[in-house]
Amino acid sequence: MRHIKGRLQKAADEKVAAYTSSLPFDWRLYRHDIAGSIAHARMLSKHGIISESDAVIIVQGLESIQQEIEQGKFEFRAELEDIHMAVEARLIEKIGEVGGKLHTARSRNDQIALDLRLYIREAIAQTIGNTRELQHALVNLAEANMDVVVPGYTHLQPAQPVLLAHHLLAYFEMLQRDVDRLECCRMRADVMPLGSGALAGVTYNVDREFLARELGFDRISQNSLDAVSDRDFVLECEADASIAMMHLSRLAEEIILWSSAEFGFIELDEAYATGSSIMPQKKNPDVAELVRGKTGRVYGHLMAFLTTMKALPLAYNRDLQEDKEGLFATVDTLLASLAICAGMVSTLKVNAESAAKAAGRGYILATDLADYLVRKGEAFRNAHEIVGRLISYAVKKEKSLAELSLAEYSNFSPLFGEDVYSITIESSLAARDTVGGTAPKRVAQAVAAAKKALGQVN
Amino acid sequence: MRHIKGRLQKAADEKVAAYTSSLPFDWRLYRHDIAGSIAHARMLSKHGIISESDAVIIVQGLESIQQEIEQGKFEFRAELEDIHMAVEARLIEKIGEVGGKLHTARSRNDQIALDLRLYIREAIAQTIGNTRELQHALVNLAEANMDVVVPGYTHLQPAQPVLLAHHLLAYFEMLQRDVDRLECCRMRADVMPLGSGALAGVTYNVDREFLARELGFDRISQNSLDAVSDRDFVLECEADASIAMMHLSRLAEEIILWSSAEFGFIELDEAYATGSSIMPQKKNPDVAELVRGKTGRVYGHLMAFLTTMKALPLAYNRDLQEDKEGLFATVDTLLASLAICAGMVSTLKVNAESAAKAAGRGYILATDLADYLVRKGEAFRNAHEIVGRLISYAVKKEKSLAELSLAEYSNFSPLFGEDVYSITIESSLAARDTVGGTAPKRVAQAVAAAKKALGQVN
Amino acid sequence: MRHIKGRLQKAADEKVAAYTSSLPFDWRLYRHDIAGSIAHARMLSKHGIISESDAVIIVQGLESIQQEIEQGKFEFRAELEDIHMAVEARLIEKIGEVGGKLHTARSRNDQIALDLRLYIREAIAQTIGNTRELQHALVNLAEANMDVVVPGYTHLQPAQPVLLAHHLLAYFEMLQRDVDRLECCRMRADVMPLGSGALAGVTYNVDREFLARELGFDRISQNSLDAVSDRDFVLECEADASIAMMHLSRLAEEIILWSSAEFGFIELDEAYATGSSIMPQKKNPDVAELVRGKTGRVYGHLMAFLTTMKALPLAYNRDLQEDKEGLFATVDTLLASLAICAGMVSTLKVNAESAAKAAGRGYILATDLADYLVRKGEAFRNAHEIVGRLISYAVKKEKSLAELSLAEYSNFSPLFGEDVYSITIESSLAARDTVGGTAPKRVAQAVAAAKKALGQVN
Amino acid sequence: MRHIKGRLQKAADEKVAAYTSSLPFDWRLYRHDIAGSIAHARMLSKHGIISESDAVIIVQGLESIQQEIEQGKFEFRAELEDIHMAVEARLIEKIGEVGGKLHTARSRNDQIALDLRLYIREAIAQTIGNTRELQHALVNLAEANMDVVVPGYTHLQPAQPVLLAHHLLAYFEMLQRDVDRLECCRMRADVMPLGSGALAGVTYNVDREFLARELGFDRISQNSLDAVSDRDFVLECEADASIAMMHLSRLAEEIILWSSAEFGFIELDEAYATGSSIMPQKKNPDVAELVRGKTGRVYGHLMAFLTTMKALPLAYNRDLQEDKEGLFATVDTLLASLAICAGMVSTLKVNAESAAKAAGRGYILATDLADYLVRKGEAFRNAHEIVGRLISYAVKKEKSLAELSLAEYSNFSPLFGEDVYSITIESSLAARDTVGGTAPKRVAQAVAAAKKALGQVN
Repeated sequence: MRHIKGRLQKAADEKVAAYTSSLPFDWRLYRHDIAGSIAHARMLSKHGIISESDAVIIVQGLESIQQEIEQGKFEFRAELEDIHMAVEARLIEKIGEVGGKLHTARSRNDQIALDLRLYIREAIAQTIGNTRELQHALVNLAEANMDVVVPGYTHLQPAQPVLLAHHLLAYFEMLQRDVDRLECCRMRADVMPLGSGALAGVTYNVDREFLARELGFDRISQNSLDAVSDRDFVLECEADASIAMMHLSRLAEEIILWSSAEFGFIELDEAYATGSSIMPQKKNPDVAELVRGKTGRVYGHLMAFLTTMKALPLAYNRDLQEDKEGLFATVDTLLASLAICAGMVSTLKVNAESAAKAAGRGYILATDLADYLVRKGEAFRNAHEIVGRLISYAVKKEKSLAELSLAEYSNFSPLFGEDVYSITIESSLAARDTVGGTAPKRVAQAVAAAKKALGQVN
Repeated sequence: MRHIKGRLQKAADEKVAAYTSSLPFDWRLYRHDIAGSIAHARMLSKHGIISESDAVIIVQGLESIQQEIEQGKFEFRAELEDIHMAVEARLIEKIGEVGGKLHTARSRNDQIALDLRLYIREAIAQTIGNTRELQHALVNLAEANMDVVVPGYTHLQPAQPVLLAHHLLAYFEMLQRDVDRLECCRMRADVMPLGSGALAGVTYNVDREFLARELGFDRISQNSLDAVSDRDFVLECEADASIAMMHLSRLAEEIILWSSAEFGFIELDEAYATGSSIMPQKKNPDVAELVRGKTGRVYGHLMAFLTTMKALPLAYNRDLQEDKEGLFATVDTLLASLAICAGMVSTLKVNAESAAKAAGRGYILATDLADYLVRKGEAFRNAHEIVGRLISYAVKKEKSLAELSLAEYSNFSPLFGEDVYSITIESSLAARDTVGGTAPKRVAQAVAAAKKALGQVN
Repeated sequence: MRHIKGRLQKAADEKVAAYTSSLPFDWRLYRHDIAGSIAHARMLSKHGIISESDAVIIVQGLESIQQEIEQGKFEFRAELEDIHMAVEARLIEKIGEVGGKLHTARSRNDQIALDLRLYIREAIAQTIGNTRELQHALVNLAEANMDVVVPGYTHLQPAQPVLLAHHLLAYFEMLQRDVDRLECCRMRADVMPLGSGALAGVTYNVDREFLARELGFDRISQNSLDAVSDRDFVLECEADASIAMMHLSRLAEEIILWSSAEFGFIELDEAYATGSSIMPQKKNPDVAELVRGKTGRVYGHLMAFLTTMKALPLAYNRDLQEDKEGLFATVDTLLASLAICAGMVSTLKVNAESAAKAAGRGYILATDLADYLVRKGEAFRNAHEIVGRLISYAVKKEKSLAELSLAEYSNFSPLFGEDVYSITIESSLAARDTVGGTAPKRVAQAVAAAKKALGQVN
Repeated sequence: MRHIKGRLQKAADEKVAAYTSSLPFDWRLYRHDIAGSIAHARMLSKHGIISESDAVIIVQGLESIQQEIEQGKFEFRAELEDIHMAVEARLIEKIGEVGGKLHTARSRNDQIALDLRLYIREAIAQTIGNTRELQHALVNLAEANMDVVVPGYTHLQPAQPVLLAHHLLAYFEMLQRDVDRLECCRMRADVMPLGSGALAGVTYNVDREFLARELGFDRISQNSLDAVSDRDFVLECEADASIAMMHLSRLAEEIILWSSAEFGFIELDEAYATGSSIMPQKKNPDVAELVRGKTGRVYGHLMAFLTTMKALPLAYNRDLQEDKEGLFATVDTLLASLAICAGMVSTLKVNAESAAKAAGRGYILATDLADYLVRKGEAFRNAHEIVGRLISYAVKKEKSLAELSLAEYSNFSPLFGEDVYSITIESSLAARDTVGGTAPKRVAQAVAAAKKALGQVN
């Protein structure tokens, strides 16, 4: 039943086949596997390892197998243990013994390393694309709401007023770093391993640079033992994805908070909310909750494969087969979560009034008051304490800052003058006029810069 | 397109449906869901919440849906978001409006809590069953090889000779603890949550004790908010599974080591070994490697769901939907790994000669030599140092302990006499005659006790 | 420099000593180590392995070493690699060569297994104690606020009104399970390993049952190889702690939410809040944030040691030394977090007015409306849809349910009558009159049951 | 007792102080904190926010505090909550009220972000340095043993002979990627956050570019909310460290295997081995075991902080304080493990004879035999099957390949000729003459390239 037997006479039983077969998940690599095989066949014939006519037959065979798969006509038989054997077996079925020449100067160990690198290059490109879409959505939402003020929070307590656009652009920055990290990962994965054989290199005069060019790789691997046992690029991609999902989980958390009855800063589009099986009034942010919840899944796949890789001796061990399912699930989850977030952000409605009301609450201008005293000559630490006492007083009197009389102010510091009443949310925003600050002018610049960055990169 | 809309007018788009639907994985709960619904319908009619005739129609409808599913005739339509809605929608299709009464006094929140508890009870029972099979295999292998000596290792260095049977029974003990832990988990999961409603209880006169009896539960939940948001039993099951996989990874590691050319203590049956696509001589312990590798996967699912559960406010949040895929994958992996290990252990051949040769190597009897001096009156710490110096000498002279003359012995301590030569592997084994020690007599008792434990429990 | 050298002539260098020494953290086990040694010495003399007078000297020596440590007079010298060697070296220093007899019939491998089990028994008892305190605090807060209504949330959207007390008791239930799990763990850890020697048992006539009795253990280990390499109890304790921290993280999240300006249901005592270095008005829930944040730490230690244990061959390997720091940190973190939460819960003030106002918001009684229709004869699924449409209408008209006229109600179903206006928050609460429901009567019973449980157990 | 109180009148109690204080671990950042403060003071005076003379006094005060700390004269008082407050409090103590001006235009939120970035820049530089040392050690060991052949393993089964040097260089490649990853991480961390204030920017005319230049940063942060809540660089560093430790765990595993009695390829220097408390003959690879074991610890810290960061709303939350301990422990562990491995590799002895003997065992040249047939015209897949049957025959006859007669060979394929006997380990090595292959010529080139890389980079 098993295809490759070497000296083993007795077939593994079905339970073993089910436990060991990777075909149920690595079939997804068929395009990469066939592309690698076509390049390999061409290289073999170019260097006389197989004849040119054999190569033509093999390449045609492979191309028609790809068609069969894409047209749903290919039978992925359970007893074939992986995509490599599934394709090779079909090739021999189709073109006869010449198909048996394809695996010359190659091992499944370097073949799977190649396939996975081809996959990850593509997966990263898609992930960056979806990240860009979410960045677009954030920038658009920011631009459409340049006047909206929200409370800026620390410790989920109102701290200082900020522009909603400023808040949204914080996520733009996080996603920029995600793109940067993913591009570094792609660069490091961009290494062609074929020619490493099972572990020690091959005994044929293979042209590894030709293979790299054919398959669009930057460079070739430098050590055969490493090339067949290296899965750093899988781990790095999963780590990058974990950080990216962490970012999305923060965004999701804020969307959940902001669409609560208590905050009420935004309203989700119905397409991104869900009803309840029992409570007809509910409009639940299920989609955001799932983004937050699926973060665990992506972390888990990282931890899983780190564990799997721990303490494996060189070179290839079958444990490495565990690389794929987690990687695929990670990429799929991140891609879908980015797309979902882009849709959710694009369609939500901002409730500027509620946000403004919340931003006006409490003593959110206290820092501005302390800075006012500093500018009048008080040392910052003293100013901070004076304002602290003033606010304790106001809390006790149940007055807002605007409701305090100048006499009351003066009880706390002689430096207070009439101009203390010109401290407003607007003045507070405008005063934070540093690079990266929330002053409307600065935020407008940041929006412009973000749009430019997206335009250039996308 | 979405089935439950409440006040939501606009359908979620397909991408959202794909992102949020749990039907692709929770269909597996159909038996548990239907069993819960049948009990619920009976309870509703028993207490006059629905009529008896309605209940009969509903129960018949549910039973025929179960048949449809088991005969492969049920269409799991993608637009139905979960197994509960899929069953209810089909029920209404089949029996009309009366099907709409089934969800009275129930919410999907308590319904899924029920289904998952029914599932886990079953899953744990199966896991214990498979653990028992592996224990049987270990005890049988031990019993069939009572005379085989292997080096006992610490730090992978030969330390003291032990019986192979003694070594195998160490795994028996680990698996005993796994069974014990799983039984505690099952006991804690054995709580009936129906009647908790969405989060606050229900406004109907439900008979929760009746439901518990019908569904074979020990007790009912005591707080509705907790009942719909508690997933401790999932985490505990995943933690128990992680510890169990850790045990299997240790066994797998030893099987890999022992079947290496260098150790050579065992030979795997061909059904549990694999050939190579390029090296015809290879007989690889792939199956054991996958057991070791899949340990990561199980750890990962635990970490994933711990992460998901972190900091969720009460009560139900959609994040909880992430409980299922990881749990199913964990149970499936552990069940298969236990079964595979049982098969692998049952069929492997022991190479007693190689093992004995390895056990004779080095200075494995050094502890016995130190104990000899202690019995002659030396303080242990001194005896330990004397034997240390003696062995340094023997290493330098390239002599085994047996090859040292009495005069040489005497140079290190006057306490050495002719009887030092009666220290042998056999005497060493026999001397460890404590409960849990490797003396053949004790190991025979342990095998008997293990067989008894299996007989009683299974 | 290293104390134990065996045949090794050359001392490990300082860097190695620093890397390998466990004394910087395992000194904490001194009481357990000395208790174990005292029991061991008594056993040795009871069975004539050492003389009675030697045992007396050894026991006195050990007792005086314990005094030295507790009085801060003991020098933990860096070059002694662990607590066992530190104590033994000091013993020999104090009482001479007879101290060298203590290690007869023992190995550090079974000694550390013993010490750690003694530690974990104690640690679990303390953890249960602190859990009880938090449960007390929750029940007291519940009892003191039996009239307070809060919105019950699902998806952080108001779903149905619940009593605050009911909500608090959900945490009581979680903590009950934590206690239960920890007690099972303690029971499984309650196994005496001494007599297992390095790995194979010992060659002396040791009385393991005597040791178990002396040290208060339930039973003795049954396999020496397993006894020295088993750390299941560490992993299980860490898994239980992870679940417990998850519970605390949920409580912390709710405390953070509830003390936000937007929710405003509670006010933290100043002892459990913190000011800001720059914003004088802030009263931040830092303590709750740290409870939430430290959850990661506890998960991390679990994952760390699961990784360490993966694929270790039998028996003892030095990797096992990594068991201690993570376990100590886990126990310390959980103990402190429980104590902190108990203090925070005991001292917080409930703002019943804000909570009631929030509970009155939105259409939180919609489920009761649907149940009303069901009781008038509508099938639940229809009732759910009717109320859904009704609420869409009310939202559009910007009316609360109470503000709708009977004519408006009747447009949606002829079943509505005057009695629809008797659906209130109070009626909603009272109607959930099932075991575990939020009806005031039921909650009062639950509080009573909780107090009884605490009384019995504590 | 707490230093910063704002409007809080009541001091947090001791338990809370102990729970929340970061001083016990963040004191390590004193150099970075003081450097940041000095640059900040200079900037403030340069732009007239404080006077030049105030700045001079502040800078001198800070410098003398640094001296106090480095001379062990500084008292880290427990009631000061973090390194920032400890330094500021001492500053005010020393220079009076003017010290209170230092915190103008700054918040602890941007200050700690700065300190941690300064720390990580340094930590990464040290880690790269230690990685280079291990690479040196590997290359030196390779160069000193260019003739040594070892079995190349896949699945821990001998697969094809390789040069030991080739095997060692595989680790060189892994470490190259670690360096590359760490450099990318450092680059991404190289962002100056001061001027972001608490969360929204500051109301002073700060010169952020000046600060960046003073502190040697590449660029400044672009969004204040992001700048105070971004810990990506911590996570990325921990992920890079996890991959690096994974590499070291593989090396450690091989060192453990290779120094076992069964493999015997190397002998550890006594400085890197340990004796046994009970078995005097033992020479245990404890150091390598701890490297392997500590891998778990580093993974755990990554998982811990990923968990902590999950779903935190913007901007700063106290949970972020959990960033430091894990990061410090990660860096410390990796630094020490790299140094230890460098020492261990530098001092181990290679047993060329044992290695050669192992490489000669089994049918390690089978692939070469199949390639021989391919070169004579057989299709690879057929050649593979023929050699499989041939080896089954040889196993049955208990003959090595060299012991088979040509007649016996010919029974399996007519293509075999006398030249089959010229397939030897040497010919096998030489034939793998591809870039990255194990041919001695190629390995010599790789050693030269590695030395050049080290020379250039270091």
